[in-house]
Amino acid sequence: MSHYSILLVFFLTCSCFTAHAKRNVLLMVADDEGLETPIYGNNRIKTPNLQRLAQRSLVFNHAFTSVSSCSPSRSCIMTGLPQHQNGMYGLEHAIHHFSSFDGIMSLPRILNKTEKYWTGIIGKKHVAPESVYPYAYSFTEQDGYNLNQVGRNITLMKELARDFLAQAQKSDLPFFLYIGFFDAHRGCDGFCENFGDGSKGNGVIPDWTPTVYDPDDVEVPYFIPDTPVARKDIANQYKTISRLDQGVGLMLDALKDFGFDDDTLILYISDNGTPFPNAKTNLYESGMVEPMMISNPEDKSRWGKTSDALVSSTNIVPTVLDWFGLKYPDYTVFGPNPTRLETESLLPVTASEPTKGWDTVFASHDFHEVTMYYPMRVMRTKDFRLIHNLNFAMPYPLATDLYSSITYLDLLSNVAANKSTHWFKTLHQYYYRDQYELFDIKNDPHELKNLATDPEYASVFEEMKSNLTEWRRITDDPWLCWPSGVLLGSKCNPLYNGL
Amino acid sequence: MSHYSILLVFFLTCSCFTAHAKRNVLLMVADDEGLETPIYGNNRIKTPNLQRLAQRSLVFNHAFTSVSSCSPSRSCIMTGLPQHQNGMYGLEHAIHHFSSFDGIMSLPRILNKTEKYWTGIIGKKHVAPESVYPYAYSFTEQDGYNLNQVGRNITLMKELARDFLAQAQKSDLPFFLYIGFFDAHRGCDGFCENFGDGSKGNGVIPDWTPTVYDPDDVEVPYFIPDTPVARKDIANQYKTISRLDQGVGLMLDALKDFGFDDDTLILYISDNGTPFPNAKTNLYESGMVEPMMISNPEDKSRWGKTSDALVSSTNIVPTVLDWFGLKYPDYTVFGPNPTRLETESLLPVTASEPTKGWDTVFASHDFHEVTMYYPMRVMRTKDFRLIHNLNFAMPYPLATDLYSSITYLDLLSNVAANKSTHWFKTLHQYYYRDQYELFDIKNDPHELKNLATDPEYASVFEEMKSNLTEWRRITDDPWLCWPSGVLLGSKCNPLYNGL
Ligand SMILES: [Ca+2]
Ligand SMILES: [Ca+2]
Ligand SMILES: [Mg+2]
Ligand SMILES: [Mg+2]
Repeated sequence: MSHYSILLVFFLTCSCFTAHAKRNVLLMVADDEGLETPIYGNNRIKTPNLQRLAQRSLVFNHAFTSVSSCSPSRSCIMTGLPQHQNGMYGLEHAIHHFSSFDGIMSLPRILNKTEKYWTGIIGKKHVAPESVYPYAYSFTEQDGYNLNQVGRNITLMKELARDFLAQAQKSDLPFFLYIGFFDAHRGCDGFCENFGDGSKGNGVIPDWTPTVYDPDDVEVPYFIPDTPVARKDIANQYKTISRLDQGVGLMLDALKDFGFDDDTLILYISDNGTPFPNAKTNLYESGMVEPMMISNPEDKSRWGKTSDALVSSTNIVPTVLDWFGLKYPDYTVFGPNPTRLETESLLPVTASEPTKGWDTVFASHDFHEVTMYYPMRVMRTKDFRLIHNLNFAMPYPLATDLYSSITYLDLLSNVAANKSTHWFKTLHQYYYRDQYELFDIKNDPHELKNLATDPEYASVFEEMKSNLTEWRRITDDPWLCWPSGVLLGSKCNPLYNGL
Repeated sequence: MSHYSILLVFFLTCSCFTAHAKRNVLLMVADDEGLETPIYGNNRIKTPNLQRLAQRSLVFNHAFTSVSSCSPSRSCIMTGLPQHQNGMYGLEHAIHHFSSFDGIMSLPRILNKTEKYWTGIIGKKHVAPESVYPYAYSFTEQDGYNLNQVGRNITLMKELARDFLAQAQKSDLPFFLYIGFFDAHRGCDGFCENFGDGSKGNGVIPDWTPTVYDPDDVEVPYFIPDTPVARKDIANQYKTISRLDQGVGLMLDALKDFGFDDDTLILYISDNGTPFPNAKTNLYESGMVEPMMISNPEDKSRWGKTSDALVSSTNIVPTVLDWFGLKYPDYTVFGPNPTRLETESLLPVTASEPTKGWDTVFASHDFHEVTMYYPMRVMRTKDFRLIHNLNFAMPYPLATDLYSSITYLDLLSNVAANKSTHWFKTLHQYYYRDQYELFDIKNDPHELKNLATDPEYASVFEEMKSNLTEWRRITDDPWLCWPSGVLLGSKCNPLYNGL
C-alpha cells in the first residue's frame, strides 16, 4: 500500500459536502483588535475595508476567542483545540517558551499530509513547534524576518500574498493562506502607530494612508477609564487599525486580481481582546469577544447580514475541514480521550440562522507570560458567564505590554496618588477575584455583580459548573481537579486543603 | 580560519589546571534518593557499594539540589544554571512539556562542540531539547527504550556502560559518561521494589541480589509520620536502593576493568529529595539535601573524608570543566546579563577543606508538574534558610506520585477521619505557607518556627533577602518582581496589589 493510500484512511471525504475541484481558504487574523469598527457599532473609527469584507460576509455578533492571549489563541485557531489540550499554555517566544505537544494535529499539518494543498503563512506566527504548524510557504518572525516588516508593512505583505497566489495559480492546488497581521498590537513606544506613516524616521509604507484621530472623538468603552491619557491611547490604536484595515483591503484585491474571488472562503478574526484593562488576557466579555466574519462565495444568501449564534475561534478548524471536504484525523495524545474537535463547522450558519443550538462557548486560559499563572475556565451561554479562577487567592497578574501602556500607568499613578481613576472597578476588585464568578450578562453587561453564591442562581450555577467540568473532562484538562484535588487516571482525589 | 580554530576562541584552556593527556568523568545520578545510607548516618540500610565509593571519595555533608524536581534538577546538573535561567521550569515529559532554551550550553553540548570528547548517557535523561543536551552515545527513554530497562535493569546498564568504555578505549578520546539511575523513584505500584527481583512475574536482573527489610527495622526521619504504612513504604524504598547500590558497584567495577580507575573523576549525586512529604518538590532541608561524593584520582588526600562546605548540584559543571581544563563559553540568552556560572569547581575542595567561603547555596523551583505552580527562591547559609514563596496564598500543590504514595494516602485518610497523623506538622501548615520563611537551622533543624517577621532576626532577614534578590538578578530570574511588581528591562515596577 502506498504512503498516499494510507493517508486516505485518515482523511476520508466528509459526506456532508461534495469536494469541489478547487476550493481555497484565506484566513486573516488581526492582533489585539477588539470591536473597534462600525461593523460592531463603533461609528467613531473608519474601517472601510473591513466593512467591504462585511458586505460579502456573515458577521458574528457573538464570536469569542478560546483564550485571550496571542500564542495560545493562535494555537486554538490553527488546531481547533483549547490551549489546555494542545499544550500551547502561554506565549511561544523567549523565556515563556511554550509549545504544543508533538502529536497535535493542526490545519496546516493536516493539509500538508495530504500533499494536495498549497499552504502559506505571512506575518505573525507565534506558535511552536514547527512540526505541528508547518506551512509550505512561510514568511514569519520564525523565518528570521522582522515582525514589523512581515506583519505591519502591508505593502510587503501584499507582495508576498500575490507571490503566494501566483504560485497557487501555477500549481493548481487548492490553497490555505494564513495572514497574521501584527496590527493592532502595541510595541514601538505605545502602539506602533507611526511605523511607515511617512513621518520623520518612521519610513513609508506606500500602500498605507494613515487615518489619524482626535482623542476627543474616540469612543471609550465602559471598561476603559475615560481620561485624556486613555483617549490618546485609543486614538493611537485607531490609527494602527487603519493600517490593518487597508491591509485587509489589499488581500481582498489580490484575491480578486488572481481570479480566486469565487472559490475562496474568507475568514476574519482577532486573536484576543483589545489591549486594555479588563480585556486582553481576561475572559470577561471585554476580553473574550472578537470581531469575526465568514465570507462563503458559494452561498451569498447571508452576505451583509449578522448572526447571533455563539461561536468560538475553535470553530475555524472544523469550518475549513468541512469546506475542503476533509475529516479530522483519528488520534490520541496524552489524555484518556481520543482527540476530537468539540466545535462544529460554521458553513451551515452561512446558509441560515440556527434555530437551536449555537448557544454555548467555552474558553480556557493558563498563562500568557510564563510568570502570569492564572488558569481560568469559562462557560458563556446566551445569558450567563461562569468563570472558574483556579489561582484565585493570588492577585491577577499583569502582562508587560499591558502594564506599560499609558492607560494602565495613568490608572496606577491615580491609584498611588489617591485620585479618582475614572474606572468602572477598583484596582483591588480587578486584582482579587472570587474562585467562581457568575454573571447575568443581559442584566449586568459590565459583569460587576457576582451571582455565584446567590441562592437564587444556585441551579444556574450548578448546571453551568457541571457542564464546564464535563467539557474540561472530554478535552483532557490537566487542571481538572485543581485547586481542591489531584487527577489520578480520570478521577479527582481530594487534597483536604479546605478548597 | 578553520571551524576548529574558531571553537578554540570559546574553549580556551583554563590556566588553573594543566590539561592531561586523558582525563575522564563518570557522573552517576540517583533518582529520588535522600540520605538513606550509612554514609549519612542511617545504619539501618545496607549500601556497601556506595560505601565503597565513599572510601575513595570526599563526601559532602551539606550538598543541596538546586531544585527538588527531576527534570529541572537534571537540567541544573547538566548546565550549572538554575532552572529559572536555563528554562527547564518543570518536568519534561507528557503534558508538562518543559524544555531548556535553545541557546543554553550544557556539559555534553560544550564537550561535543570541541569534538575531542566521547560523551555518553545511559538511563534516565528527562531533559529537552536534544540540541541542548546531545550525547554521542545514548540509551535513554528518549531514544525509545523502556525506562525501567535502561534505568533499573543494572545488568543491561552494566553491559551498555562496558560497551561505552570499550569504545572509549578504542577511540582514545577522553570520555564523559552520565549514568541516570531510575532508582529509587516510585512507579510500579508503590516503589518499583520488585522489578527484576526474581519473584513471580517480575523477571530477573542477574546482577541484583535484592536486600529486603523488615518495616520495624527502618529509620523513620523526622519529616515522615512514624506509622506502619510509612514504615512499609520506607522498607520498599530501601529494597529499591539496594538495586541502585549494586548498580553503582557494577559501574565502579567496569571502570577498573577497563583501566580507567586512575584517570576518571567520579561524581555521585541524587536529583532531588526523598519522595516523601516535606521532601521531594520542597526546598526545606529535607527536600534540598542530597548525597554527594566526588572521587578525584589525582588527589587521594581526602579520600574517605567528609567536607562541611555548602555545595550545590550546580557545582558539577564548573568541576567537570575544571577537570577537563575547559572554560565556560561566552554567551547570552534572553536576559540582560551574560550567561555565567555562579558556582565554582569542587576540585580545590578535594585537596583541602576551605577555611572561608563555601557557606551559601541558592535554590529555585517553579513547577514540577505543569499544574503545580509554586515558585520558590531559597538561600541557605550555614545557619539559616530563607524561602520566598511567590504563590504563597494558594495551597502548596502535590505531585501525582507523592500523592499516590501509601504514606501520603495514609496521612490523608487519618486527616479525613480526624485521627492523629503522627506527623510533625499539620496538613494545613504544610499547605499554607508564609510568603517569606526564615529558619534558624542550628536551633530549629525541623524548620517549624518562621522567624521572618521576628524583630530579633530583622537584620538577618533583610541581608539574606537582599543577597537572594541579587542572585536572582544576576541569574536573569523572570519572576524577579513577582508577586508585587512587573519586570520592565531590569527594573521592578509596582503593581499596587497590596503585596
Ligand atoms: Ca494578540
Ligand atoms: Ca527524581
Ligand atoms: Mg516537544
Ligand atoms: Mg525552543
